[in-house]
Amino acid sequence: MKLNVYLAGEIHSAWRDEVIAACDGLEIDWMGPVTDHAASDDCGVEIFGAEEDKFWHDRKGALLNAVRTRTALDRCDVLVVCFGEKYKQWNAAFDAGYAAARGKAIIVLQPPEHDHALKEVDAAANAVARSPQEVARALRYVTTMTL
Amino acid sequence: MKLNVYLAGEIHSAWRDEVIAACDGLEIDWMGPVTDHAASDDCGVEIFGAEEDKFWHDRKGALLNAVRTRTALDRCDVLVVCFGEKYKQWNAAFDAGYAAARGKAIIVLQPPEHDHALKEVDAAANAVARSPQEVARALRYVTTMTL
Amino acid sequence: MKLNVYLAGEIHSAWRDEVIAACDGLEIDWMGPVTDHAASDDCGVEIFGAEEDKFWHDRKGALLNAVRTRTALDRCDVLVVCFGEKYKQWNAAFDAGYAAARGKAIIVLQPPEHDHALKEVDAAANAVARSPQEVARALRYVTTMTL
Amino acid sequence: MKLNVYLAGEIHSAWRDEVIAACDGLEIDWMGPVTDHAASDDCGVEIFGAEEDKFWHDRKGALLNAVRTRTALDRCDVLVVCFGEKYKQWNAAFDAGYAAARGKAIIVLQPPEHDHALKEVDAAANAVARSPQEVARALRYVTTMTL
Amino acid sequence: MKLNVYLAGEIHSAWRDEVIAACDGLEIDWMGPVTDHAASDDCGVEIFGAEEDKFWHDRKGALLNAVRTRTALDRCDVLVVCFGEKYKQWNAAFDAGYAAARGKAIIVLQPPEHDHALKEVDAAANAVARSPQEVARALRYVTTMTL
Amino acid sequence: MKLNVYLAGEIHSAWRDEVIAACDGLEIDWMGPVTDHAASDDCGVEIFGAEEDKFWHDRKGALLNAVRTRTALDRCDVLVVCFGEKYKQWNAAFDAGYAAARGKAIIVLQPPEHDHALKEVDAAANAVARSPQEVARALRYVTTMTL
Amino acid sequence: MKLNVYLAGEIHSAWRDEVIAACDGLEIDWMGPVTDHAASDDCGVEIFGAEEDKFWHDRKGALLNAVRTRTALDRCDVLVVCFGEKYKQWNAAFDAGYAAARGKAIIVLQPPEHDHALKEVDAAANAVARSPQEVARALRYVTTMTL
Amino acid sequence: MKLNVYLAGEIHSAWRDEVIAACDGLEIDWMGPVTDHAASDDCGVEIFGAEEDKFWHDRKGALLNAVRTRTALDRCDVLVVCFGEKYKQWNAAFDAGYAAARGKAIIVLQPPEHDHALKEVDAAANAVARSPQEVARALRYVTTMTL
Repeated sequence: MKLNVYLAGEIHSAWRDEVIAACDGLEIDWMGPVTDHAASDDCGVEIFGAEEDKFWHDRKGALLNAVRTRTALDRCDVLVVCFGEKYKQWNAAFDAGYAAARGKAIIVLQPPEHDHALKEVDAAANAVARSPQEVARALRYVTTMTL
Repeated sequence: MKLNVYLAGEIHSAWRDEVIAACDGLEIDWMGPVTDHAASDDCGVEIFGAEEDKFWHDRKGALLNAVRTRTALDRCDVLVVCFGEKYKQWNAAFDAGYAAARGKAIIVLQPPEHDHALKEVDAAANAVARSPQEVARALRYVTTMTL
Repeated sequence: MKLNVYLAGEIHSAWRDEVIAACDGLEIDWMGPVTDHAASDDCGVEIFGAEEDKFWHDRKGALLNAVRTRTALDRCDVLVVCFGEKYKQWNAAFDAGYAAARGKAIIVLQPPEHDHALKEVDAAANAVARSPQEVARALRYVTTMTL
Repeated sequence: MKLNVYLAGEIHSAWRDEVIAACDGLEIDWMGPVTDHAASDDCGVEIFGAEEDKFWHDRKGALLNAVRTRTALDRCDVLVVCFGEKYKQWNAAFDAGYAAARGKAIIVLQPPEHDHALKEVDAAANAVARSPQEVARALRYVTTMTL
Repeated sequence: MKLNVYLAGEIHSAWRDEVIAACDGLEIDWMGPVTDHAASDDCGVEIFGAEEDKFWHDRKGALLNAVRTRTALDRCDVLVVCFGEKYKQWNAAFDAGYAAARGKAIIVLQPPEHDHALKEVDAAANAVARSPQEVARALRYVTTMTL
Repeated sequence: MKLNVYLAGEIHSAWRDEVIAACDGLEIDWMGPVTDHAASDDCGVEIFGAEEDKFWHDRKGALLNAVRTRTALDRCDVLVVCFGEKYKQWNAAFDAGYAAARGKAIIVLQPPEHDHALKEVDAAANAVARSPQEVARALRYVTTMTL
Repeated sequence: MKLNVYLAGEIHSAWRDEVIAACDGLEIDWMGPVTDHAASDDCGVEIFGAEEDKFWHDRKGALLNAVRTRTALDRCDVLVVCFGEKYKQWNAAFDAGYAAARGKAIIVLQPPEHDHALKEVDAAANAVARSPQEVARALRYVTTMTL
Repeated sequence: MKLNVYLAGEIHSAWRDEVIAACDGLEIDWMGPVTDHAASDDCGVEIFGAEEDKFWHDRKGALLNAVRTRTALDRCDVLVVCFGEKYKQWNAAFDAGYAAARGKAIIVLQPPEHDHALKEVDAAANAVARSPQEVARALRYVTTMTL
């Protein structure tokens, strides 16, 4: 069974590469946001012109990035969303809420110390994983039916 | 006409193989749940860690299996659901209800002794078959237009 | 907060009355299927004429009952579905699947011996209760915000 | 014009009371989550029985709270979501994502220091307010057409 | 249980009055098309100006009538559609198809001689009635739970 | 631009072949119902067993044919529906209503003498054609942008 | 039959008052945008703070007004949209497109000189009226069934 | 990431060609309306017969063109809509409203002098571009993740 998987959240570690590497050979189409932090922040003003106010600088970038993320979220079968150690990561939780409302399957990748704070997100998910390898094993099982 | 067919229910007999064999040559993409009973029961704890409480052991497995089944149910054109002689088979009836709410065509495969108990499920279905061969003949007719 | 609650499943015990009595004073609109077993079985032929074949006798009744149950399921906010000790109860599981696909909140009322067989249904639910009193407490909490 | 407004997020300050007080006289039905932190955390185990594992303790509570929050989110016209100074507040961002996917109007209440971290949420919103009074003025304008 | 019932089809007999009279005392909101044949045919040109071409004369009327019928069809829980002895009645079948695609319950009122020609419509319906009295009995059963 | 076109209605003339022949070279995937009248009428009893009552004989066939027609109607971009000189053709009008509710583009092929009786169907359509050649020209224009 | 009617477009003439006055006695709930031009333009900066750039000044206002207009558009049964003699009126056409995609009935009020430019909007509408009185007569007919 | 992009609006300048040329090498499927003004105006009467009344001449054309535009709008991921210097361009704004209601990403291409008049359209968009090159840069960024 072929899957469309969106990898959301944390962009400062190698978890995406680890999941994808560990899923080698599986029929999965990978999607995700722009992971170049600077490009993601500045794409709006870079293309459509500078803004004096940082608020609108951010708005222009976020709206342009949403062209990619919303399209991909609407296409995916499974959202894998990673909450890392740092940052507020509200966009990760936003993506999870969006995916839940669209009826997507959700796998959350999170360290145990976030368990209580993520309990509402986890309650909307199909699985809570502790490592990219667990995510990959789950996707392997779902697509190949073998553990 | 090409069809996406999901084969739900009963996993302890060879009915899936018989339907698929009898549909040889037809343009059908087959989907279905994991039919390895042990893997299906234990996938959650196997991948994400053991649970002391059997209730949560089951929950972890059921949620992971749902990644596969919901995705496939949402993709299929036709749900074929088989109610066998044994077990409660509530997940089979659940799949039928889910498919009905999604507007999928439904073919039920059931022995006559279940007719009264399955009357609500049958009333939401396009056909009630008595054998894998009848299911296959129906799918052959739908895809090729010939009896 | 006012709720529309559909009470599905088991029709041979007093669980509905017990839930409703224990929710006395709450702003809840109750809905449910016809619970007169004979009327539910025979309504179709009684109104639209007898059938020689029991299969179509059942079909006529099930289709007519669906006018009520589908309308009510589509209107409800919460589905409470009770699985009793006896019978196949596939229509209860069918209702749960239908409600899940429609994004309804689900509370399952079941004895522990059904836990394994109901694991897929439970995994789509917001709570698994063991008694009508637990169901009522949950509804009281949801509508009044107090335990 | 009458509105159904859901007040999501931050539960440790008086912002809800301030918004509601400042909207005195407007035709608004207010909705929101359970704001008693202890009840919200423990409702699941309190009603359905204790859990040894904190993870499932949290899960039971989050799932029960979702009966209320999802029903209310689906009913509201406008989501007002407040991000306070403390905590991770991932459930607030999750609610915003859910509301965005359901096409709800969104007003975010946030201090300027969160602007960059909330840029994706803000980009899905109709307004970013700095105080409960601004939220109330906006709701007054929307319902009465006067500034 | 309160129902919204749309009475579609045949406008040259008294079947609507008979159904409504026989449902006396039931909680039903009745809806239906304009049943004044002349007004229904000429409303468009009467209000918006004459047309030389009968084709556009008809189009103007049909589009205006659709404001009423589509709104009512979208609101109803149950479509009762009557196929009489005369006329082509394609609009009745069109309404049934529209209602089926919207997931509405359908009760068809038809004489036996139309059975074969209406088999596709009947297959999408919950009941086939032979008289307004049967329709009324069905609605009484659905709303009051008693035969 | 590639189109998925469903050819509904009239099965006793060669209009389908004429449309398809006149669209030679266009990127169109054609769909349609079973056009073998006898097979269409008897498929249900042929596969699932005979019925004494003609009413249920018809029901079994209509339900099985609906597996094909509903799947195809849900997939198509354009419904071309032909109303011929003979028969009641209520299933053609039913398909048009179903397609209208699903937001499909509709082209009706009909002789002028049916214009008044089909005015509600035509009012939901994008075009009313008088010959298969007109249908083909329209599809050629839509797909190639040239008259 | 009660209707919810949204009056969109032109805010510099008295057409809304004339339609409402001419509908005196009808069961209609009226909705519409803020018609105070200055308030509509400046609401955003008035409530949430000034902007140096006129582009963002406008954005803040348009987003806040959308809280009202989208909510009302989603609630209405009928959109009446008036294109006056002056201004670009793109928001009127935008509202019509939004309403069309949501399956709302549409009545366009326009002078003949706009006919060609509005042909795509008119083709999605149920009627094209030339005066508030024609709009009112149409709404009277739809709600009371009498010309 | 592959995108389906619909190019709406202005048909009298070369902006479409410029966008497409500047996107050379990207995985984009382009869609759009018929851009031959005469064909677009006359397609209806050319194929289905002349009309004396210009109003119906236009209607026939607009309805036929809608077969193409609605199908393409429903398929696209991104709507790029260009408002030129001339004409009323209400169909461009209509397309934007339709796309917004369908949840499509929107990029508006407009000269600064239209900013105020287009503020409601812009507020529903992901970006406002000033040249075809800016549109192309945005699409390049969205599909390739590089600025």
